[in-house]
Amino acid sequence: MQSKRVVVATPDHPLLLACGRALDHVEVAYETYGTLNPARDNAIYLCHALTAGCHAAGVCADTGELGWWDRMVGPGRAIDTNRWFVVCGNLLGSCLGTTGPSSIDPATGVPYGLTFPPIHIADQVAVHRRLCAALGVDELHAVVGPSIGGMQALQWMLDAPEQIARMLLIATTGRLTTENRAFSAAGRQAILDDPGFEGGRYLEGKGPGPERGLAAARRFAHITYVSAEALDAKLGDEPPAAWPPPAADAWLAPSREVERYLEYQGTSFVRRFDALSYLYLTRPMDDFDPFGAEHSSAARGAFARRPDAEFTVVSFDSDWRFGTDHSVRLAGALREHGARHVDRFELHTPLGHDAFLLEVPGLEGIVRDALEAPSTSS
Amino acid sequence: MQSKRVVVATPDHPLLLACGRALDHVEVAYETYGTLNPARDNAIYLCHALTAGCHAAGVCADTGELGWWDRMVGPGRAIDTNRWFVVCGNLLGSCLGTTGPSSIDPATGVPYGLTFPPIHIADQVAVHRRLCAALGVDELHAVVGPSIGGMQALQWMLDAPEQIARMLLIATTGRLTTENRAFSAAGRQAILDDPGFEGGRYLEGKGPGPERGLAAARRFAHITYVSAEALDAKLGDEPPAAWPPPAADAWLAPSREVERYLEYQGTSFVRRFDALSYLYLTRPMDDFDPFGAEHSSAARGAFARRPDAEFTVVSFDSDWRFGTDHSVRLAGALREHGARHVDRFELHTPLGHDAFLLEVPGLEGIVRDALEAPSTSS
Repeated sequence: MQSKRVVVATPDHPLLLACGRALDHVEVAYETYGTLNPARDNAIYLCHALTAGCHAAGVCADTGELGWWDRMVGPGRAIDTNRWFVVCGNLLGSCLGTTGPSSIDPATGVPYGLTFPPIHIADQVAVHRRLCAALGVDELHAVVGPSIGGMQALQWMLDAPEQIARMLLIATTGRLTTENRAFSAAGRQAILDDPGFEGGRYLEGKGPGPERGLAAARRFAHITYVSAEALDAKLGDEPPAAWPPPAADAWLAPSREVERYLEYQGTSFVRRFDALSYLYLTRPMDDFDPFGAEHSSAARGAFARRPDAEFTVVSFDSDWRFGTDHSVRLAGALREHGARHVDRFELHTPLGHDAFLLEVPGLEGIVRDALEAPSTSS
Repeated sequence: MQSKRVVVATPDHPLLLACGRALDHVEVAYETYGTLNPARDNAIYLCHALTAGCHAAGVCADTGELGWWDRMVGPGRAIDTNRWFVVCGNLLGSCLGTTGPSSIDPATGVPYGLTFPPIHIADQVAVHRRLCAALGVDELHAVVGPSIGGMQALQWMLDAPEQIARMLLIATTGRLTTENRAFSAAGRQAILDDPGFEGGRYLEGKGPGPERGLAAARRFAHITYVSAEALDAKLGDEPPAAWPPPAADAWLAPSREVERYLEYQGTSFVRRFDALSYLYLTRPMDDFDPFGAEHSSAARGAFARRPDAEFTVVSFDSDWRFGTDHSVRLAGALREHGARHVDRFELHTPLGHDAFLLEVPGLEGIVRDALEAPSTSS
């Protein structure tokens, strides 16, 4: 498996963004699995989570890495690629092959940095749709999105309900809580405060960039992606360090197991992800409010245009990012706005928010059923 | 009310620390409220939380600030200063008047920095005890400790059970979870990674010190001190920002209400607290394990020496630092190790860990009863 690139916006066919600006060049990194059938009605789009990329399944030819959802996507798996044609594109604003703030601005020849326009989740969906069009996919049997991917899925249904028959919204939300926004804000602040950020121009120079700030943001975020039980399970019940300790610098240094683990989360993330993308991908979540007063009637209108749409909403009981309270509100808002077929499931797992990436009893069955069950309306 | 200072260790009477080193000079900032009675049996010691100081009640003569527990401590209050003689000393290792890593090392004339020895909670208790001795207090009717203060209270009972009749352990723990340690570690790492830390020597120069790292640590920690509900209650249900946004730098800047709030938490903290003290006060919590295998028999021995000791353990249901699960384990460990009189209360409040500082229905009554009820053994 090797990811491909496609150009979905050009000076002749620019991408007009929600902020009013336009991008003259947008390239998308994507992978597909399975085969689009002659009727072109077996396509499923996967919207990935915050820092993942388009490599969702199989082994990457370049790196040998397994896709982020390989346990779910493949021949005979819950998202069965013998049956479905699965598309996964890297998000607009990311740094994993799709145009984002670390890309070269064709107008200047240097990386955009903070001259990259603000993006809305609707813009990311517009890019997903252009990718589908380029692949000859007009209709989607389903859009599947975990975490921020679920927000894109939901936005897509609102923007183009005719296109989508089924939605799987996993560990996601229709609106961030104040606490969610606080964690994101504290992470962004750590990046913006890092002298290495250089006003977003660090990619033009030779500095290390805001590596420390990005690592700090990631370490804290990581704690919120797992649960207390998951940390205990992963790291065991480490006894306090032997006492007396060595000199104070060694005593204070991150030497214990949980500290080495967090250290690794930070340093490995900095190697694979860009700080500007971290800013540009977290901020749109704050702005996402599809059922807010301003958007409420548009949502009603969208659901009315697709009365047969089927929604499956899944949460994990140990997730304290987008846990069951979020799913309950989301399912409620869907129904209130006219969605007729909404199934909601809470799964028990100690694995926290990141559970969608891992083994959760029941999850694969729910996903398979949501995709394969005969349509409720038929 | 004005805090006073007392020297509790001198070259002739050094403080021997758990790490094997000694401090030749320890000064303690403290306040007292009420009057020690002729029988000297009405003293109560307050162990403050991580970043508080000795100014627990009344109005500070210098700053006009109200004490951190003024709602609890005063004439007619739950800790009634018409009846009790209340002592509160700033912690060893802090920066609010008591000797710590930002103090001048008398041997060198420059601030200790990382040459300050590692400290154990038992060392902090040893300083509390020297302060009491200096005030003519040999026996304590009670030691009261919220959060890390509860760990000191517990350590004190283990080190000198004869001295204490009653203990109030509020929103505290007998041992940190992996998640607790992870949050602390990520905070320390943000400080250690800040170039302004300068290997702990920042106080000798003219640099700003690790202000950014300390502010980042505080912002994240603050989120864990309050609950999701408390944040919502405090900041209201802020609608997402108007769209389209201005230019990307303004869009990404911390301009929204929750962001200005966190910004304030960070900057105001940096003005009043020192980064080295933050390191030196958080690390001992990791090392605290009074009921661990190594210390278990000492704990049994201590409780056996004071069979009439009365323990009151209080938790808040919305606290996800040291919530009810911690209190349940703590009360269990106390009983297992021979404590005979253990009362445990869970209070309902949306205020999270910081609830002990705020208005929680039931808390003042529990504190008053725990102090004033006739002894169970009498």
